[in-house]
Amino acid sequence: MNVESPNEKKEYAADLSSIQEARIRIQRFAHQTPVLSSESINAASGKQLFFKCECFQKGGAFKFRGACNAIYSLDDEQAAKGVVTHSSGNHAAALSLAAKLRGIPAYIVIPENAPKCKVENVIRYGGQVIRSKATIQSREMVASKVMQETGALLIHPYNDGRIISGQGTISLELLEQVPQLDTLIVPISGGGLISGISVAAKAINPAIRIFAAEPKGANDAALSKAAGEIVILAETNTIADGLRAFLGDLTWPIVRDLVDDIITVEDSEIVEAMRLCLEILKVVVEPSGAIGLAAVLSDSFKQNPSWKDCNRIGIILSGGNVDLGMLWNSSEK
Amino acid sequence: MNVESPNEKKEYAADLSSIQEARIRIQRFAHQTPVLSSESINAASGKQLFFKCECFQKGGAFKFRGACNAIYSLDDEQAAKGVVTHSSGNHAAALSLAAKLRGIPAYIVIPENAPKCKVENVIRYGGQVIRSKATIQSREMVASKVMQETGALLIHPYNDGRIISGQGTISLELLEQVPQLDTLIVPISGGGLISGISVAAKAINPAIRIFAAEPKGANDAALSKAAGEIVILAETNTIADGLRAFLGDLTWPIVRDLVDDIITVEDSEIVEAMRLCLEILKVVVEPSGAIGLAAVLSDSFKQNPSWKDCNRIGIILSGGNVDLGMLWNSSEK
Repeated sequence: MNVESPNEKKEYAADLSSIQEARIRIQRFAHQTPVLSSESINAASGKQLFFKCECFQKGGAFKFRGACNAIYSLDDEQAAKGVVTHSSGNHAAALSLAAKLRGIPAYIVIPENAPKCKVENVIRYGGQVIRSKATIQSREMVASKVMQETGALLIHPYNDGRIISGQGTISLELLEQVPQLDTLIVPISGGGLISGISVAAKAINPAIRIFAAEPKGANDAALSKAAGEIVILAETNTIADGLRAFLGDLTWPIVRDLVDDIITVEDSEIVEAMRLCLEILKVVVEPSGAIGLAAVLSDSFKQNPSWKDCNRIGIILSGGNVDLGMLWNSSEK
Repeated sequence: MNVESPNEKKEYAADLSSIQEARIRIQRFAHQTPVLSSESINAASGKQLFFKCECFQKGGAFKFRGACNAIYSLDDEQAAKGVVTHSSGNHAAALSLAAKLRGIPAYIVIPENAPKCKVENVIRYGGQVIRSKATIQSREMVASKVMQETGALLIHPYNDGRIISGQGTISLELLEQVPQLDTLIVPISGGGLISGISVAAKAINPAIRIFAAEPKGANDAALSKAAGEIVILAETNTIADGLRAFLGDLTWPIVRDLVDDIITVEDSEIVEAMRLCLEILKVVVEPSGAIGLAAVLSDSFKQNPSWKDCNRIGIILSGGNVDLGMLWNSSEK
């Protein structure tokens, strides 16, 4: 499917209207996050960079926007039965928090080998933890069982129009805060964030360029764009634990049509970008969140002649949930 | 001197007009810093807290406001001769940066035992480093020599009306961003920051309460308030390296008259507050900058019955210039 007429755009799982509706739905609950800039980092990149700080979002990541939109989109009957997910990262915490705000149950299936901090995060935000074995089959089976027993609705972390629309509210805010942006750089994993952002940003400014930033060790989106179809990797290997998912059938058409290019970066570049965020911006950003800065500072970005005219660049610092001790441990090696 | 009539207020080194003028003078150069909040930290404190993030200010600390106001207050003739300071911390970096923006020289006298990172910071912002011996006598002597040779003007880090007025612009912004604040908690050292903040905030809302936060190991402001005169300590001992200065003759009258009380905290409480800023707010804050949060979480604040009705509290996160490795090293002990 190629987008050739405006009507066809409506086939995507989200559009400008659904994103504007999401904004109204979540604005009582979500933070309008600030945009920071630094002349030192501008000098290092040769560009004017504007950092949209979703690490300051509730729950410490952009995920709360989509989760909140999904939770408040439910009718009362469905809401009373609750929601379930078998993602154990920022989406699980965000869904728990949004469900708590609405006063409905969130059942979070977490594999027995998940890090303790993730479990604690879900509990802190009021989610009900249900243990599964470590395999994806076990997680899905346990989630199905919860759904059967409780009537709870599965909320997928990214392959869901309500989630995509919620994440798209970032573009509405950012393009009001810095209207003159000509480029956005967005982390890509399952594609929920960049899909929402692309749909909204290109509806507002069709000339804006959108780049995805992806780790070399989980470069399925770059391979998918090259192949013209969703590519699944047998394994991934990256410090950016939030960027290991693969595109879904709702996010792929948007990524295929609206994302202009994909910049892949090394883990070492991600760690260096995290350090710049801490030392210069004074912002705590997780590896997945720092990848946009890593991309704009990478040689492949700087040396690509067709990107020379990208000058005012919005970078999404997507989250800040990180054990910072890791950074110091990694530097001691 | 007691303040008994509005006219007498004009005897202070700054007033609402000078602060409003400072705002106009610096607004092309300084960031309007965002205000963050966290429901987790609100729950821990039992209050609604609003964090004014001066760690995101240019140079990484509020000091840029005062320095910029001082630099742009100079007439062209004086400006051409430059400025000098023998403070080596955030003020030196801020003064260097403001001088660079105006295109005039900043001579920064730095003792030979100063940490390398402070010297690098000054150089990065374009200051001209001039070495002295470690004693305060040597620093002052070298600064005098620079003034004689160049005609440069000494800009004191806090005991200066232009500096106080610049710092006061924080109140103008903060009370626009969160008009319903009933209390402010502000780090105190030489008193420049809290003087500017108090003069502006009490002019806008005379009922607002202002508390200073001070380390127990450098509690000269608390002792000064108790004694009714400036107390100088023979030595200080605190992790908050930015809070070791003593009140000056221009800041003391304001602190004496307008600061409602002083909360002293242990270094361990400061480190814990830094950690909360990193882990929950996702903001890098130096020890001096985290002390306001430490104060509001301290037992002495929570248990003081006369502060029970402080509910909507603005906390100034004054700066973020810290070697974060320190935090991990301190936790390994």
